[in-house]
Amino acid sequence: MPVKFSTRDPDFEARFQALLGAKREVQEDLNNAVAAILADVRARGDAAVLDYTRRWDRLDLTPEGMVVGDAEVEAAVARCDARTLDALKLAADRIEAFHRRQAVENNFYTDAAGVRLGARWTPVGAVGLYVPGGTASYPSSVLMNAIPAKVAGVPRIAMVVPTPDGVVNPLVLAAAKLSGVTEIYRIGGAQAVAALAYGTATISPVDKITGPGNAFVAAAKRQVFGTVGIDMIAGPSEILVVADGANDPAWIAADLLSQAEHDTSAQSILVTDDAGFADAVAAAVDAHLARLPRARIAEESWRTHGAIILVGAMDEAVALVDRIAPEHLELAVADPDGLAGRVRNAGAIFLGRHTPEAIGDYVAGPNHVLPTARSARFSSGLNVLDFMKRTTLVGCSPDSLAAIGPAAVALAEAEGLGAHALSVAIRLANRTA
Amino acid sequence: MPVKFSTRDPDFEARFQALLGAKREVQEDLNNAVAAILADVRARGDAAVLDYTRRWDRLDLTPEGMVVGDAEVEAAVARCDARTLDALKLAADRIEAFHRRQAVENNFYTDAAGVRLGARWTPVGAVGLYVPGGTASYPSSVLMNAIPAKVAGVPRIAMVVPTPDGVVNPLVLAAAKLSGVTEIYRIGGAQAVAALAYGTATISPVDKITGPGNAFVAAAKRQVFGTVGIDMIAGPSEILVVADGANDPAWIAADLLSQAEHDTSAQSILVTDDAGFADAVAAAVDAHLARLPRARIAEESWRTHGAIILVGAMDEAVALVDRIAPEHLELAVADPDGLAGRVRNAGAIFLGRHTPEAIGDYVAGPNHVLPTARSARFSSGLNVLDFMKRTTLVGCSPDSLAAIGPAAVALAEAEGLGAHALSVAIRLANRTA
Repeated sequence: MPVKFSTRDPDFEARFQALLGAKREVQEDLNNAVAAILADVRARGDAAVLDYTRRWDRLDLTPEGMVVGDAEVEAAVARCDARTLDALKLAADRIEAFHRRQAVENNFYTDAAGVRLGARWTPVGAVGLYVPGGTASYPSSVLMNAIPAKVAGVPRIAMVVPTPDGVVNPLVLAAAKLSGVTEIYRIGGAQAVAALAYGTATISPVDKITGPGNAFVAAAKRQVFGTVGIDMIAGPSEILVVADGANDPAWIAADLLSQAEHDTSAQSILVTDDAGFADAVAAAVDAHLARLPRARIAEESWRTHGAIILVGAMDEAVALVDRIAPEHLELAVADPDGLAGRVRNAGAIFLGRHTPEAIGDYVAGPNHVLPTARSARFSSGLNVLDFMKRTTLVGCSPDSLAAIGPAAVALAEAEGLGAHALSVAIRLANRTA
Repeated sequence: MPVKFSTRDPDFEARFQALLGAKREVQEDLNNAVAAILADVRARGDAAVLDYTRRWDRLDLTPEGMVVGDAEVEAAVARCDARTLDALKLAADRIEAFHRRQAVENNFYTDAAGVRLGARWTPVGAVGLYVPGGTASYPSSVLMNAIPAKVAGVPRIAMVVPTPDGVVNPLVLAAAKLSGVTEIYRIGGAQAVAALAYGTATISPVDKITGPGNAFVAAAKRQVFGTVGIDMIAGPSEILVVADGANDPAWIAADLLSQAEHDTSAQSILVTDDAGFADAVAAAVDAHLARLPRARIAEESWRTHGAIILVGAMDEAVALVDRIAPEHLELAVADPDGLAGRVRNAGAIFLGRHTPEAIGDYVAGPNHVLPTARSARFSSGLNVLDFMKRTTLVGCSPDSLAAIGPAAVALAEAEGLGAHALSVAIRLANRTA
């Protein structure tokens, strides 16, 4: 049922471009509604947040009641299944270990002209982490957003999570505790984004907001961008599996479905050089679907957005991968490292037949917040640097200013910027006087 | 004429917040006009670009005529003043040397569980550099945008620069040549942004667009964001000078004016512990203004947005700096390094009495594209990493998947994602069978 075509088809380029250009998401225009909520929270603070929470989460809170305290977190952790909690701890440890390798170094030096130069990284002062409520409330997302901020050294990590009808996901609170979240508020939607961006009497403003959310949250993040930093606004998830005929079709079918089950807008693409294998995978997808809890979603995604692309030889896959620039790239081939070395554009690469993409969603260590919709051409997955910023430093002595200052004066004059030239020349004049 | 207040004033906090919250920019809403131009270029390609160029730049070009060829660049370089050209070369060399220190390393390792992990940086494939025409056509901006891309290893750097009535700035072409630009087109405005983002018959599409521009260009960049990456949309320039009474007031006045002359929306702030010095600086500003070519702009900026803040002791300056998070911070004090070490939020810091900010605009080496409007709280100046992206890699063997896979299955099941669990479990089952 997904589209199927070959690089040998005479109309291949047209079909491939249609696949690349297909819009998978219907964007609701919520901008006016969201702007009104943001303005209301900015003006009325806590009172506005509580009003929206009463209306949409059917929850009547006081300002203090927004805060999820330590005792409540401890109680939630105690309610979690022990095996799941162990798995969460393993995931947190592995994610932290991987992200610690992203540490950056400051760099200070004096160059040949005697100019002191430097670049210094500092953590963002306060980060807000949005966590969706209901069925999309994923503890793994808490780990993936909070741990890089913790590793960066962010002193304050404030989490917001809506709890419609008061229902809390205890694993989300356990994940928050494991990953260094310092404050938790039981609010959500555009009103929670506004509270984080502008601050209220109860919630101090943050400098940057990250984390996934529904269309209201995405629109709110776009609108507060500038007042605070935001992470990327993620599109629907995608996987591209490059697999030869030596794979078990049932394994590859499971991998394709692990993206498809996220969302009816998700996209799973198989690239293979073996037409018989492609048919076997398609059959295995149907067989799995009969037994999966989210079969309805996965089937609609696979039918509507799935694709099978036949290549004459695996070498052809590299160019296709770079044009698709997939969020997730699985290389289920004999020499995955060789193929990976030639790929330029992918958010994350999963090497070999024993590395299903789902291992990276939870426990491998790298971040699962990755660039979608071809943006791996120019952007990266969430990482420690997203929670730091760089300040450059310059220090001139009278001598080093004399060495490089005349060039600055010449360029400022060429650009017609007289005060720029003056600010250098007035110091040079003083020295030679 | 600028506002002046002291941390000792009873209404200090209110006045400081008013200063922080003041809007300095009037945002024109050009979104509909720009959307129409983008759609037209997307549909009609070169023909649309040429139509807009005819209308707004009064320039009748053929598709081939958009291209600025090597011979034209060489001829422009030959027309440049030799002293200015030498200064431009010095600047390019120093900027390149500083940015080469930003090189990042790939990181591949196998962890204790036997999982192969990695992070790999690759350059963006193609970058578009927007350079404004007319009086805002600054060769220094070409260096600051193109050199980091060149250092990153970007193979294709396409520059667009409008040439109203056919007038080219030869120094801009000289800067392009010095900094590794690979293609130049004499087009500008939203139509040039569209050509870079979507491609035309003459211009191949790029992956990321950087560089300053007018309100049309800024709106176009916002709208093509997602299709391509963009750099920050810069606000009006700012400087915060922290200066004690031991400075020459005329030097500090020149530094304040070097920002003010950029734009009537620019902002210059002096923080000092010496009221008499503050008055002397204000007087020196007026004296300089009588002699500066851009006095009208500088004076309006200083009068409308300038500020003098008196502190009881220089230690108080640190907290003010972090709240203002200035684009440029000048520390004209006896121990600038000590003060700089305590500041968290600033785009670039200029250390000591002999380091006017303008030295950083041209020849110091660090980038002059810096975060404005308090965004230094969460973002950094343009750098090599802005032209690279990171791909993470994971490789499991049957054994290492057996070690960490069960935790992934447990978490996928806890999140209700059956195909995620299946894709791991199906491989584990095979092994133990």
